[in-house]
Amino acid sequence: LKVFSLNSNFKLAQEIAEAIGVELGKCSVSQFSDGEVQINIEESIRGCDVYVIQSTSQPVNEHLMELLIMIDALKRASAKTINIVMPYYGYARQDRKARAREPITAKLVANLLETAGADRVITLDLHAPQIQGFFDILIDHLMGVPILADYFEAKNLSDLVIVSPDHGGVTRARKLADRLKAPIAIIDKRRPRPNVVEVMNIVGNIEGKTAILIDDIIDTAGTITLAANALVENGAKEVYACCTHPVLSGPAIERIENSKIKELVVTNTIALPDEKRTAKIVELSVASLIGEAI
Amino acid sequence: LKVFSLNSNFKLAQEIAEAIGVELGKCSVSQFSDGEVQINIEESIRGCDVYVIQSTSQPVNEHLMELLIMIDALKRASAKTINIVMPYYGYARQDRKARAREPITAKLVANLLETAGADRVITLDLHAPQIQGFFDILIDHLMGVPILADYFEAKNLSDLVIVSPDHGGVTRARKLADRLKAPIAIIDKRRPRPNVVEVMNIVGNIEGKTAILIDDIIDTAGTITLAANALVENGAKEVYACCTHPVLSGPAIERIENSKIKELVVTNTIALPDEKRTAKIVELSVASLIGEAI
Ligand SMILES: Nc1ncnc2c1ncn2[C@@H]1O[C@H](COP(=O)(O)O)[C@@H](O)[C@H]1O
Ligand SMILES: Nc1ncnc2c1ncn2[C@@H]1O[C@H](COP(=O)(O)O)[C@@H](O)[C@H]1O
Repeated sequence: LKVFSLNSNFKLAQEIAEAIGVELGKCSVSQFSDGEVQINIEESIRGCDVYVIQSTSQPVNEHLMELLIMIDALKRASAKTINIVMPYYGYARQDRKARAREPITAKLVANLLETAGADRVITLDLHAPQIQGFFDILIDHLMGVPILADYFEAKNLSDLVIVSPDHGGVTRARKLADRLKAPIAIIDKRRPRPNVVEVMNIVGNIEGKTAILIDDIIDTAGTITLAANALVENGAKEVYACCTHPVLSGPAIERIENSKIKELVVTNTIALPDEKRTAKIVELSVASLIGEAI
Repeated sequence: LKVFSLNSNFKLAQEIAEAIGVELGKCSVSQFSDGEVQINIEESIRGCDVYVIQSTSQPVNEHLMELLIMIDALKRASAKTINIVMPYYGYARQDRKARAREPITAKLVANLLETAGADRVITLDLHAPQIQGFFDILIDHLMGVPILADYFEAKNLSDLVIVSPDHGGVTRARKLADRLKAPIAIIDKRRPRPNVVEVMNIVGNIEGKTAILIDDIIDTAGTITLAANALVENGAKEVYACCTHPVLSGPAIERIENSKIKELVVTNTIALPDEKRTAKIVELSVASLIGEAI
């Protein structure tokens, strides 16, 4: 068994290697002068079960091509099996034709991974669980909810309500609510166009309660911060937010800092650069969860 | 028949559309806030033969993913055939395992294009013509030499010698020499590592002659500028250089400006940004050549 890290998430890869008691394999992933990816695998992997850790987080196209080229190199170097650990699955939101002539990039990515030579994919909290069906190879779909639940349980908060910021996330909120033995509420909103959000009204009782907002991805943080502010305006005592995948692009950090969110709890499926590590953000590790799946 | 341009080479695409007498199809290729590619095809292409113009030039991973996602969108929008015009084929230099555990990314790219749904590829001057065999779909392989030859012919230079800057390019030099009715010479060099070049000696007679160096790709311009300077030191009267694909990364422009190269003649398979357009560089268009192949 060999574990290699590409460039998206080196620290998580080290934690995973530690969790399963191996050293990370030696390889260098750099660029030629013209920006083409150059990969050197610096130890034999012939006949090995190889695990490659790479989130297709920003810059997504760079990270995806690194991964595809690594798979090609491993295949040609006679790996026995090539197992992809993709804690964050980029392009997951492009999972259907919502309008005419749209691509289904989440399916394209699945096909590209299979074409390159992947045998198995381990991932967390796909934007839609249906993406599992885009693969003909083995796929392990892990859940971040237990890790988030453990954190909030240890905090011993009372009079909780778990809130889904949109209709699509109610199942996820239900799971967290079960773990924390709390009721749920839903923010009833309409989104006029991508990355722009309009909050409507709140379904469920939140008055005087400590609300925990949960989502799979927080990207520009428009949805979650408007939801948090609406909760406070409607009588919530305080608002926590949590998600598995902290994409946090564009105005996200500024929005979170200026919002009524008391604390944002995320996992390390996406590496946070230093400028995104503020006092409000708590990061939990998925290393042992992934370690068990390997 | 519909022709679409992605982001790598809009001006060439317009010239090609003009050459064949059509308007470019309407589509927008942009990015979501987190850098994921967003494509909107803004007119019906159902049942059409669609041509997509995209060089996988720098940023290569961005341009390649744009292309793959566009192919996916076209396929799902019921295009009759999807024809890829890829004037410059990125990753072509990674066309074999030169060392243990290297990827063969040029073959991976061929597989990715087929998987996405391409029916045919039109390209120019592949770094190795063997890359044609990496495809199971139709591939048209066009040559830049006639365009370069026409340009030099019109200049009416006398006492010419066509020089290949390395052993791999002799066949290409021979073709240009045939067209210009000139003899050839070869620079006999060793390259200790990528992008670093050491010039050795010159095979053939260049004394007092006007030399034209020819290569397929000029990347960091190490090879070509050292070759030019060696030619002048060894008695060449003046030195022109030409290539099909002006990658011109890193120190290329500075090296060319400081070299003995009198004029560098390139084609527009790769769009030159303004900061790379110096007085020494002459750009020829491949639009009508590609127009004929469509
Ligand atoms: N990276 C992205 N950023 C913002 N919106 C996206 C992104 N990728 C896909 N989308 C759009 O988001 C919608 C899917 O989001 P959802 O309704 O939350 O499943 C689709 O209409 C997509 O066009
Ligand atoms: N983008 C690139 N820039 C520089 N060298 C490269 C690039 N891609 C591949 N190579 C290396 O260049 C060599 C092939 O170049 P050549 O000998 O000219 O065919 C191989 O050893 C590759 O590892």
